[in-house]
Amino acid sequence: MSNIKNQVAIINLGTELTQGFTQNTNAHWISGRLRDMGFDTAYQIALPDSADTWNSTWNMIREAGVRMVIIGGGLGPTADDKTRDLIAKTLNRPLVYHPEWEEPIKLWFTSRGKPYSASNQIQACFPEGALVLDNPVGTAPGFQVTHEGITLFATPGVPSEAKAMFERHIAPWLLAQGAPKFFTKETRLAEITESDLELVLRKVDFTEEVSWSSLPVKDALVLRMYSHKSPEILETVQARFEKALGEKAHSIIVSRDGKNMVQVIMELLNARHEMIATAESCTGGLIASEIVSESGSSAIFAGSIVAYQNEVKTQLLGVPSDLIEQYGAVSEPVVTAMAKGAQQAFHCDWALATSGIAGPHGGTEEKPVGLTWMAIATPNKIFAFQEKFLGNREQIRLKSVYRVLSRLRIAILEQKITCTSVH
Amino acid sequence: MSNIKNQVAIINLGTELTQGFTQNTNAHWISGRLRDMGFDTAYQIALPDSADTWNSTWNMIREAGVRMVIIGGGLGPTADDKTRDLIAKTLNRPLVYHPEWEEPIKLWFTSRGKPYSASNQIQACFPEGALVLDNPVGTAPGFQVTHEGITLFATPGVPSEAKAMFERHIAPWLLAQGAPKFFTKETRLAEITESDLELVLRKVDFTEEVSWSSLPVKDALVLRMYSHKSPEILETVQARFEKALGEKAHSIIVSRDGKNMVQVIMELLNARHEMIATAESCTGGLIASEIVSESGSSAIFAGSIVAYQNEVKTQLLGVPSDLIEQYGAVSEPVVTAMAKGAQQAFHCDWALATSGIAGPHGGTEEKPVGLTWMAIATPNKIFAFQEKFLGNREQIRLKSVYRVLSRLRIAILEQKITCTSVH
Repeated sequence: MSNIKNQVAIINLGTELTQGFTQNTNAHWISGRLRDMGFDTAYQIALPDSADTWNSTWNMIREAGVRMVIIGGGLGPTADDKTRDLIAKTLNRPLVYHPEWEEPIKLWFTSRGKPYSASNQIQACFPEGALVLDNPVGTAPGFQVTHEGITLFATPGVPSEAKAMFERHIAPWLLAQGAPKFFTKETRLAEITESDLELVLRKVDFTEEVSWSSLPVKDALVLRMYSHKSPEILETVQARFEKALGEKAHSIIVSRDGKNMVQVIMELLNARHEMIATAESCTGGLIASEIVSESGSSAIFAGSIVAYQNEVKTQLLGVPSDLIEQYGAVSEPVVTAMAKGAQQAFHCDWALATSGIAGPHGGTEEKPVGLTWMAIATPNKIFAFQEKFLGNREQIRLKSVYRVLSRLRIAILEQKITCTSVH
Repeated sequence: MSNIKNQVAIINLGTELTQGFTQNTNAHWISGRLRDMGFDTAYQIALPDSADTWNSTWNMIREAGVRMVIIGGGLGPTADDKTRDLIAKTLNRPLVYHPEWEEPIKLWFTSRGKPYSASNQIQACFPEGALVLDNPVGTAPGFQVTHEGITLFATPGVPSEAKAMFERHIAPWLLAQGAPKFFTKETRLAEITESDLELVLRKVDFTEEVSWSSLPVKDALVLRMYSHKSPEILETVQARFEKALGEKAHSIIVSRDGKNMVQVIMELLNARHEMIATAESCTGGLIASEIVSESGSSAIFAGSIVAYQNEVKTQLLGVPSDLIEQYGAVSEPVVTAMAKGAQQAFHCDWALATSGIAGPHGGTEEKPVGLTWMAIATPNKIFAFQEKFLGNREQIRLKSVYRVLSRLRIAILEQKITCTSVH
């Protein structure tokens, strides 16, 4: 954590948040903006529309010494909009009616042909001494008030309004406070567990200037380094980290620029003018869907045959039915034949195939839930491998998708080094 | 707010949350589950991996009188996983190593053929007197400890693990505390907008005993009614609501028992012993993947051809190339031919097809981003329809998936009424 001077508390009021009806996306977004500006979010707090929890939270913030508080929600005209009352009582400043601020609210309604109700007048009332902040995208203005050294911003909770008011009023104010410099570097990793990464990182001299965090996301393990000093110190530490990874670095490092697994594979295949197809059983189209989720994937992706029945594997992918009978659908020979079948059906340079037991039913002692066979057809060979994934049906499917994509990435890289494409 | 006895505080630790890198979805999910069980979330708090903010938060919670605290995150093996240390210091209970809990962690690695690192040993250390909670879907166990009348649960932060541990350990414990009576009724709706639903609901007498909320989810609009009085009052109001929907009720109501769109379609097709296949362009396997995500889908789902290139549409789905040339890939004739091709290729009773412009590029004035043609082949006819969806690439694809599935559901229902399957 940086100095207390750079710390901000974000408080969102709304029973719809604490009852789990609405995801609090505002706190997440504001924290990201604060980070980019060099400020730290010390607390993200969502509260119901209730005086008790507000009071205890306010006391904690004040006693913790946080000097900037961003409050969202509860500024509308209805009875459950309590924020302006709560703040007025907490700061012991009466609410003052500002008729000049009722005019733009009236105008907002009339210009949209909507009837204006007197209940909106409350939206033109603000704690005594507050600076009113106009709302460029909605009716309720916000306000800013400094009290006992704490500067407090109140904005509506509607995400578009909260964001617009942050950019218009809060960000400029924060910048004027003299934000510290803050630099980050993100490396996406695969083929390494979080605990193995920890062992590697222990060998790296991060200096006192660089901190790191690691976070598993669906396609990779994201390593973030950050520093208040300079981009150069991050580069220095990054070089040490990559050296510590050793000769496996090229297999492990997916990207250094935030690109995800599919984006990296697209880039590699685009550079080679090669295309890929998939034949999917347990993943059921999820590899295809993950690829198609990237704009521009049509340049490298031909299509997929989702073969969820054995007859489909035979008829559309040309898997010999005796292979299925002899080895079962979840087996090396079958998944290999599926990859070959997809490569041929789509006339592609590359093909991926999966066949596994995603559960929760269908597992046996020999072939437990989580067992997935995966195959990769390259321009000049086909190979298969298996994993036993843990988790529920969705997790097993998603892990299968990104396991085979990671191996594909490495296969493309190795292909590039060791031979020329046969196409 | 209900009685303080029913109040729960949710605390999530992780600098990735407060730096705005990761959206805190766990607090949202847990609050929803607590609500369904009759408990109130008094505080949702996300904190960085830091002792100061943890200490001030703990003091606030204790002084506020909250007696149940659910803590997520920071139980992994790396140095930024501070939760077990923070709790141990706060409660003044030393961390105790439980060798019997290291065994399952070791096993987790060895059963996957992965090397076990000693850094994982910390995951078998728990505050003195804590009850260890096994983790059914990951390595790090959680724990439960009651201290000065406050019961505190700690679980990993990975959403799938946090959810699994809530269901396995926390929910049963909460139920045993004697939750207040609380009744809910969930109706999943499609083919109606949220604002049109609002107009219908205004006509319904909810009595003073019943509240409602609506929430859009990916496959439907979920209407929840809840009451502290009785299940009967919910049934009474539900009947009024369905009457207010009028003759469209059967099209609009997807389920009254929490079943999602795919589960309802599975049930309908299972009852008819019929199968379905898909031919997907813009959705790129996402319909298939959504169907396969349901266990048991193999009984009704044959497979899919993801035809992301025009040649694939021609060669694998038999779409005449002159149709594509004349009308373009995103057109009624092509999507109709795709559905017919899938029905034939997979020998299925039903087939779905999609072809659209998911963006952000590729739109024209005539065929803008968001335009999607969808077709449904039934046992005795094929029909197509188009929509212009708003949103980003992912949203357009997901809306396409659930729009065509909703129309499929209605088509199956109508088929049942008006004719006998030709198969």
